[in-house]
Amino acid sequence: MKKIGVLGGGQLGRMMIQSAMNLNIHVKTLDPDPNAPCKAVAHEFVVGSLNDYDTILEFAKDVDIVTIEIENVNTDALLEIQKQGTPVFPKPEHIALIQDKRVQKQFYQENNIPTSPFVLVENKEELVKHKDLLPAVMKIGKGGYDGRGVQVMRTETDFEKGFDGPSVFEKMVDIDKEISIIAARNEKGEINTFPAVEVVYHESNLVDYLLSPATISKEIEDKATEIAIDLVKKLDFIGLLAIEFFVDQEGNVIVNEVAPRTHNSGHQTIEGNITSQFDQHIRAVANLPLGDTARRSPSAMVNVLGEKGYTGVAKYEGVDEVLSISGVYIHLYDKQMTKPERKMGHITIIAETKEQLLEKVDLVKKHFKVIA
Amino acid sequence: MKKIGVLGGGQLGRMMIQSAMNLNIHVKTLDPDPNAPCKAVAHEFVVGSLNDYDTILEFAKDVDIVTIEIENVNTDALLEIQKQGTPVFPKPEHIALIQDKRVQKQFYQENNIPTSPFVLVENKEELVKHKDLLPAVMKIGKGGYDGRGVQVMRTETDFEKGFDGPSVFEKMVDIDKEISIIAARNEKGEINTFPAVEVVYHESNLVDYLLSPATISKEIEDKATEIAIDLVKKLDFIGLLAIEFFVDQEGNVIVNEVAPRTHNSGHQTIEGNITSQFDQHIRAVANLPLGDTARRSPSAMVNVLGEKGYTGVAKYEGVDEVLSISGVYIHLYDKQMTKPERKMGHITIIAETKEQLLEKVDLVKKHFKVIA
Repeated sequence: MKKIGVLGGGQLGRMMIQSAMNLNIHVKTLDPDPNAPCKAVAHEFVVGSLNDYDTILEFAKDVDIVTIEIENVNTDALLEIQKQGTPVFPKPEHIALIQDKRVQKQFYQENNIPTSPFVLVENKEELVKHKDLLPAVMKIGKGGYDGRGVQVMRTETDFEKGFDGPSVFEKMVDIDKEISIIAARNEKGEINTFPAVEVVYHESNLVDYLLSPATISKEIEDKATEIAIDLVKKLDFIGLLAIEFFVDQEGNVIVNEVAPRTHNSGHQTIEGNITSQFDQHIRAVANLPLGDTARRSPSAMVNVLGEKGYTGVAKYEGVDEVLSISGVYIHLYDKQMTKPERKMGHITIIAETKEQLLEKVDLVKKHFKVIA
Repeated sequence: MKKIGVLGGGQLGRMMIQSAMNLNIHVKTLDPDPNAPCKAVAHEFVVGSLNDYDTILEFAKDVDIVTIEIENVNTDALLEIQKQGTPVFPKPEHIALIQDKRVQKQFYQENNIPTSPFVLVENKEELVKHKDLLPAVMKIGKGGYDGRGVQVMRTETDFEKGFDGPSVFEKMVDIDKEISIIAARNEKGEINTFPAVEVVYHESNLVDYLLSPATISKEIEDKATEIAIDLVKKLDFIGLLAIEFFVDQEGNVIVNEVAPRTHNSGHQTIEGNITSQFDQHIRAVANLPLGDTARRSPSAMVNVLGEKGYTGVAKYEGVDEVLSISGVYIHLYDKQMTKPERKMGHITIIAETKEQLLEKVDLVKKHFKVIA
């Protein structure tokens, strides 16, 4: 029915293709890696830089809509594409805003979106002026990803671990829970949100597993949902916005950061909810009615990461053990090479009760390994 | 992890690819139609005849397993591939047996699988010798598909509508219900079956809609399941076997016919059951543990057929209306051209109750049309 151009050919694009196929929507992807996960399954797969203006303009010439699966793209090119008449969702200005954590934080502050106290600094040398914020977190303005570009600082002696570029320096939140809500909005202005999920972190700062429903009160879920809707409206956002929240020890709900796309914290929606985040993304950017986001059953999601100590052609251990458990869904991303903590896939688990869910999570984590 | 060669690049292959992707299984497909539904999404798409010995041998040279998504293929080629050491599942002898409805019927008779009384005839001229079977159905031995090659005969005057080739002439069953069960078996000998679904037919003899659970007693479901398991065991079958049953007015359960592959009567398993038939097919042929087939919720499946009176480039009406209903999943097969009653896709519907399900089925049928 339509041809969507997607900047980025990684796993998020790959799962988007699985959804888009069902509506006869053809997906053309652009990625610098000639072996990116979308390579063999995209209708068209173009190898090229996501930061090169001309490459992106050329790429978008024959598509009906442009969208993204990664936010580190050249937004000037997207502005030009939009100007030439091809819809770009999310809008280039939102991608640009979110690319820079400094601009993001200022937007929250100016628009009464709850966020942690912060200052903008140009480099680590400036931190000494803001000792009063300790314990705090320094986040690089641009280019951070999956825990990179984030440094926790408990005392002044940590300042030397800081970054040398423009950053945000924010007061550490006394976290009780981390939750995530994915909101969607289409051109018609229709908005809806997925139920909150709870994100449980691993020491390495990569998501360990994800629980749906989150173990939070209805009041907290309502508060977070309200903030999500408020944020999407104030931005005049179109597409999918994944919002990560901190819930502090006093029950305050604070926006941590957002991503203008499908998100790791929404993978379990494929099996766990009536509509998946990938279906919802397609619906939102193609201006189709948004889907019902209700849960079908409790679910959990475990990231499949490259085992420490192994680098090379990936081999998967425990496939049989995991496939023997009812309601366990392996999603691999077709990445040939593994390295320590590389995201190689995820596993979704559904169960009737939370107890059963956590038992299965333990089994999956025990058996499933990516080695080389 | 593995590369599967699939004979046939139609919608069944396309949905198999959506499943195979999740296990990093690469799918190579062979189809005579250069625009077959698998074209753009298969890892490799080869255009060629499914009946040509050399084409199939060449196709299979670099794959780890060969399977099918259509049974009208050259089984001599498959026997040779098997002889050369590449596993072929379902086994070539089973495909050959099922290709010929005459051999199929004889197998049932010889193995005490309940089936309707029949005779083998060489052409329509012989029918007059078997008037005692009337009302009856003449089915062409080879090459029938989706209602083609099947002729109902109520009186002797219908004999002239018969076929000129080797056929089965079978007593018409006084049908109360038509149900279907899909059984799976892997090389380890593990067997399981999907719950029975009820197939409601349209005047044109194409499936109108499909209901899960079937509205039958536990006794009848158990009887059908027992026959399905018995059949798979007696055949020593590996892969997926879709078994269509008649339940007659006296509650007898009779095998109508079978298909050695994923089947139209299993499409609703994608959203309706814990494991989909496409996942199960991959698991069975790759000798992985079979998945739990239990229902997650009641479901229905409506075929999306080309509207009568329209031939040409397909356009879809009612997409917005249908996507506005909760728990409705559009699956289009990426066929460019529509013609009357061409299978262009299917729509799965889930609901809490049968009443809600049937209401949604009505809405879907009312709104969704394929025109040109």
